[in-house]
Amino acid sequence: MSADALRPANLEEPRAVSARERDALIRELLGVVPSQGVLHDDEDLRPYECDGLSAYRRKPMLVVLPETIEQVQQVLRLCQAHQVPVVARGAGTGLSGGAFPLANGVLLGLAKFNRILAIDPDNRCARVQPGVRNLAISEAAAAHGLYYAPDPSSQIACSIGGNVAENAGGVHCLKYGLTVHNILELKVVTIDGELITLGGQSLDSPGYDLLALMTGSEGMLGVIVEITVKLLPRPERAQVLLAAFDNVERAGEAVAAIIGSGIIPAGLEMMDNNSIRAAEDFVHAGYPVEAEAILLCELDGTNAEVSEDIMQVRELLIAQGATEVRTAGDDQERLRFWAGRKAAFPAVGRLSPDYYCMDGTIPRKNLGQVLRRIGEMSDEFGLRVANVFHAGDGNLHPLILYDADTPGQLERTEDFGGRILELCVEYGGTITGEHGVGIEKLNQMCTQFTPDALTQFHAVKAAFDPRGLLNPGKAVPTLHRCAEFGAMHVHHGQLPHPDIPRF
Amino acid sequence: MSADALRPANLEEPRAVSARERDALIRELLGVVPSQGVLHDDEDLRPYECDGLSAYRRKPMLVVLPETIEQVQQVLRLCQAHQVPVVARGAGTGLSGGAFPLANGVLLGLAKFNRILAIDPDNRCARVQPGVRNLAISEAAAAHGLYYAPDPSSQIACSIGGNVAENAGGVHCLKYGLTVHNILELKVVTIDGELITLGGQSLDSPGYDLLALMTGSEGMLGVIVEITVKLLPRPERAQVLLAAFDNVERAGEAVAAIIGSGIIPAGLEMMDNNSIRAAEDFVHAGYPVEAEAILLCELDGTNAEVSEDIMQVRELLIAQGATEVRTAGDDQERLRFWAGRKAAFPAVGRLSPDYYCMDGTIPRKNLGQVLRRIGEMSDEFGLRVANVFHAGDGNLHPLILYDADTPGQLERTEDFGGRILELCVEYGGTITGEHGVGIEKLNQMCTQFTPDALTQFHAVKAAFDPRGLLNPGKAVPTLHRCAEFGAMHVHHGQLPHPDIPRF
Repeated sequence: MSADALRPANLEEPRAVSARERDALIRELLGVVPSQGVLHDDEDLRPYECDGLSAYRRKPMLVVLPETIEQVQQVLRLCQAHQVPVVARGAGTGLSGGAFPLANGVLLGLAKFNRILAIDPDNRCARVQPGVRNLAISEAAAAHGLYYAPDPSSQIACSIGGNVAENAGGVHCLKYGLTVHNILELKVVTIDGELITLGGQSLDSPGYDLLALMTGSEGMLGVIVEITVKLLPRPERAQVLLAAFDNVERAGEAVAAIIGSGIIPAGLEMMDNNSIRAAEDFVHAGYPVEAEAILLCELDGTNAEVSEDIMQVRELLIAQGATEVRTAGDDQERLRFWAGRKAAFPAVGRLSPDYYCMDGTIPRKNLGQVLRRIGEMSDEFGLRVANVFHAGDGNLHPLILYDADTPGQLERTEDFGGRILELCVEYGGTITGEHGVGIEKLNQMCTQFTPDALTQFHAVKAAFDPRGLLNPGKAVPTLHRCAEFGAMHVHHGQLPHPDIPRF
Repeated sequence: MSADALRPANLEEPRAVSARERDALIRELLGVVPSQGVLHDDEDLRPYECDGLSAYRRKPMLVVLPETIEQVQQVLRLCQAHQVPVVARGAGTGLSGGAFPLANGVLLGLAKFNRILAIDPDNRCARVQPGVRNLAISEAAAAHGLYYAPDPSSQIACSIGGNVAENAGGVHCLKYGLTVHNILELKVVTIDGELITLGGQSLDSPGYDLLALMTGSEGMLGVIVEITVKLLPRPERAQVLLAAFDNVERAGEAVAAIIGSGIIPAGLEMMDNNSIRAAEDFVHAGYPVEAEAILLCELDGTNAEVSEDIMQVRELLIAQGATEVRTAGDDQERLRFWAGRKAAFPAVGRLSPDYYCMDGTIPRKNLGQVLRRIGEMSDEFGLRVANVFHAGDGNLHPLILYDADTPGQLERTEDFGGRILELCVEYGGTITGEHGVGIEKLNQMCTQFTPDALTQFHAVKAAFDPRGLLNPGKAVPTLHRCAEFGAMHVHHGQLPHPDIPRF
């Protein structure tokens, strides 16, 4: 792959920084951060050249690893003084390129903010630093019978600060909500170096809801330095059903039927045949490899509640045409059912040299139709797709299989991915469920939003960061870019396909 | 009461508008809104001179009642052109003065936006106009076995647009969340007259979370003209426990114990002896009038789940020292238990010529202590207090009893109310649970937030409304006002009372 191909077409670079300016900034940074926390050698910068959107690579100008909130404040003040942009980074597991570095910018790593500061079982919350791993919170809370609900697939590795920046989801967000629904308070450093507290430990906080505004803002409004998360009591019991279907659309309809019945499963996941086979080969979960689709439905709660729900969902699945419905006999089988789902991404990775994970959301009732359309596009682009996703939320994760060494395949894959996202918008959905926009979906933001809405986004950005130094070029495209991309906004009432059910 | 006393000390008036300017604006408004929708006679303006914060009265300069979104757009463009401020108003039931009119401003009434546009049982949502009454949504959805969860006490009268503007709560928000957790999409007209759509019908929406930002922004960022709300399936069963305590603090500890056990009741309400007696005299709910406090705990869900929870909560209440625990024998008794709670405000109103309802939130574990301190303050101010509130959320509603005809009592009541809110902040809580800041709590915002946080609020406001024409003088105080009020911000780590448990 040529060096040029490693730069995403989407990313605009800010102004160049001269060697002299860079050296001056390094000197000043060394005055506020311990010397091992300022990285500028080629070798040291290499681990930071990409995040989870690994198709692209680029070395940052500098990496700074502060250890205290005061140091973050001083680093941001210096960057502001030098007019050098800053990209904050947690564990670097993000899939849309939110932490992708700038060649002319500082990468602000929060890895040293890795302490759990307090666990308060009475008020069911925990105060943590942003570099704490998602799963580490639940591990620490387990002694009190509590856990932190949002569980992105990367939860062993991803950091809670990154989860907040991207408003991460996971299997259980169907019942327990996204990150924004599971946090109470944030401490944030502004680009001016001011420390502000957003939200609070109560039900509601007066003033504008800057807590929600900051959540999912992809590092563009401030740097998160402390988080108070909600903790939930571990449910008494969890049980999983596995249902097989000989038709993908029918599986999609079963999802709508379960949710429509009033039951809210803890998780409701779907895998298509490509994913089933890949997962089965990889971890031997005992999946029915002939099925066109399987659903995994987890129910949790009290013993009585789960027993009742299991019966009802079982009947529903059979009524919806499932060819087979299995209930995990014990906890071991339950974990095996999930093991296949959780290993699906690496399993699919064995089918092809590379894959590209998309993330779009559609109304549940359109699942079957949209999956059929993705299948048609797969033929059209000549690229295989594996679907494994949060069906209960209507949150699709099509994995496009490609080979980066075949000239033109990455570009064709990007086009295909963009088309899938536009399809989601066409069906009244959105271009991201839980992975964020980053650099990956900038163009599709032009499809999702009107120019007036984008203008309002830019005004909000300017209220926090008037000079555009925080993670520039990510998440919200300029109107100029949208004009170049083409006026693709799908207005309500002007949907191109008259057969799409309107609401 | 003198005319001057009717003007809240908190409200700053914008610049005066000359009779000529006013007449010109009326003429232009008549060009865009039907003539019966532009009110300017003294008589016609009177119904709009206050909202639910009825201690104060003031006539608006004009009332405009548009009937379509296009008319709202044109009205806002005219107000912007004339630099005349605009206060949006739903049903006028708000308790903090958010819709209190300006003598030099236009009151934009949304009463004619009273249609339910669509109910979509498959995706469990409804698209409604802002003037629709809260309860009317549940009534319309009942045919599908669905309902809209947030239920402010005023739900018969209050409008959904006002609910969004104030991020309203209610008895059931303990389990089902505030308004912000129960809406999907908003259509909003900006002060420039642009129509923008915030949020969407999917799980998550890309870009900054302007849906959450707009919710609870008290009419200061835009005018809400359409709302898509989530609908929930009606639970199979609901059951209520009534527990009596001979000590208020013990009742507070029982609340913390129930929530700490992992059960999330649909509602968990507390009434003190003043409220119990008042309610019992008024509606004969069968309350134990000797009790110092009662708790009402509603559990909902499937039959099995409710049966199990009832047993567990019953045991907990007895272990926590309840002198009596009753379970409603049938639906009639359940409704009677709630009738007392729901009638508590008017019932307390019979004890005294006037009352002033406060709304603050504290961490649940401090309920007992804070109620004791409010009791001490009641003696100090020589004003009786009745407490009836959402205990499960830690959301207090002390009703201060006073007589507006006794010189100085209203002022003493306001001081007492302010002190209660500062007490909430002192205990790590907030100055509002669900009623908003409006004009009532402007000074306490200075206690709640640092100058840096308030500055950020003003920057966000300016991103939507740079000239400050939307509901000026509400919700977010100027730094100048805070300086006059005194530097009262309680910093974390500098709490004045060392015995307050820190987290």
